[in-house]
Amino acid sequence: MSEIEPLGAEVKWEGKVIRAGIERFRYADGAEVTRDKVWHPGAVGILALDDDHVWLTRQPREVVEAPASLEIPAGKLDVPGEPPLETAKRELAEEIGKRAEHWEELVAFYTSPGFSDERVWVYLATDLSDEPGSGPDEDERIEIVPWPLGRLDDAIEQCEDAKSLIALLWLAGQRQLAYGVH
Amino acid sequence: MSEIEPLGAEVKWEGKVIRAGIERFRYADGAEVTRDKVWHPGAVGILALDDDHVWLTRQPREVVEAPASLEIPAGKLDVPGEPPLETAKRELAEEIGKRAEHWEELVAFYTSPGFSDERVWVYLATDLSDEPGSGPDEDERIEIVPWPLGRLDDAIEQCEDAKSLIALLWLAGQRQLAYGVH
Repeated sequence: MSEIEPLGAEVKWEGKVIRAGIERFRYADGAEVTRDKVWHPGAVGILALDDDHVWLTRQPREVVEAPASLEIPAGKLDVPGEPPLETAKRELAEEIGKRAEHWEELVAFYTSPGFSDERVWVYLATDLSDEPGSGPDEDERIEIVPWPLGRLDDAIEQCEDAKSLIALLWLAGQRQLAYGVH
Repeated sequence: MSEIEPLGAEVKWEGKVIRAGIERFRYADGAEVTRDKVWHPGAVGILALDDDHVWLTRQPREVVEAPASLEIPAGKLDVPGEPPLETAKRELAEEIGKRAEHWEELVAFYTSPGFSDERVWVYLATDLSDEPGSGPDEDERIEIVPWPLGRLDDAIEQCEDAKSLIALLWLAGQRQLAYGVH
């Protein structure tokens, strides 16, 4: 497998969140390729757990016409220079009105590395408490869903969002390891 | 949570694989929003198992500068009208030179539903056999990796691709259920 040298990018369109265009690359053997590319700021997701619940949200995802996508709390890295963990702490307060004493990075991945550089960091957040004065604004259309851990499989069944599936499948595996439960 | 009415889209740039632009939507309460959007043809991924291995690939993902991304076999829905299962069968032959007697849809999801309509269907493929005359072309730079199931956790550790993590985490959970092994 050869190393990849970037030869130059052309941004063809810049939106509010993403940029789209092409980038050229050269392999060590001299071959060159051109790829469609989307530049994305990256994002975080939070697997927020108390003894009985995983804290989920339902929110509209307009571009896939999903009126109430079941997801873990999440947010884009839209504050320049903010480390992902700080974004995660901010988003946990903004989306579900909670803070957590303990944070642990579980996994980081690319949502679709064939065309997009979006990288998502997923954190485990435990020892939750209410964060007064926080929570979603009315116009964000975010519903907070404390999901019973005993029905975790139903959440996995309903979920159609990659970062949330990764977090929930990881959690299901951990619970099987710890308790031998499905 | 309100229903979402699409009001119209503007494609601002069309690449070889994706299109990018904006789309406007109206909620039942009258509020309107405009979203960045990427149109993507969709994709399939295949969790191909024999008694001892999960069949993975290593391939370059130029846009994230990964020279050898560890992934399940996969491919875009780039033949108009082809059902995802047929694409999966074709890609299993093209990427790792195998066919499977048994196919089962495991999950379908959106890779990043905030901006992209890319949907991925993941299939479980078992009862594998060699498909003569198939396999990757030299210029595809795809390395076939029969990964020992006993080291599944290492694959999950190394993997940075959303669809592959979903498939491998699902598999890890099934193995714990079946055998009580980590």
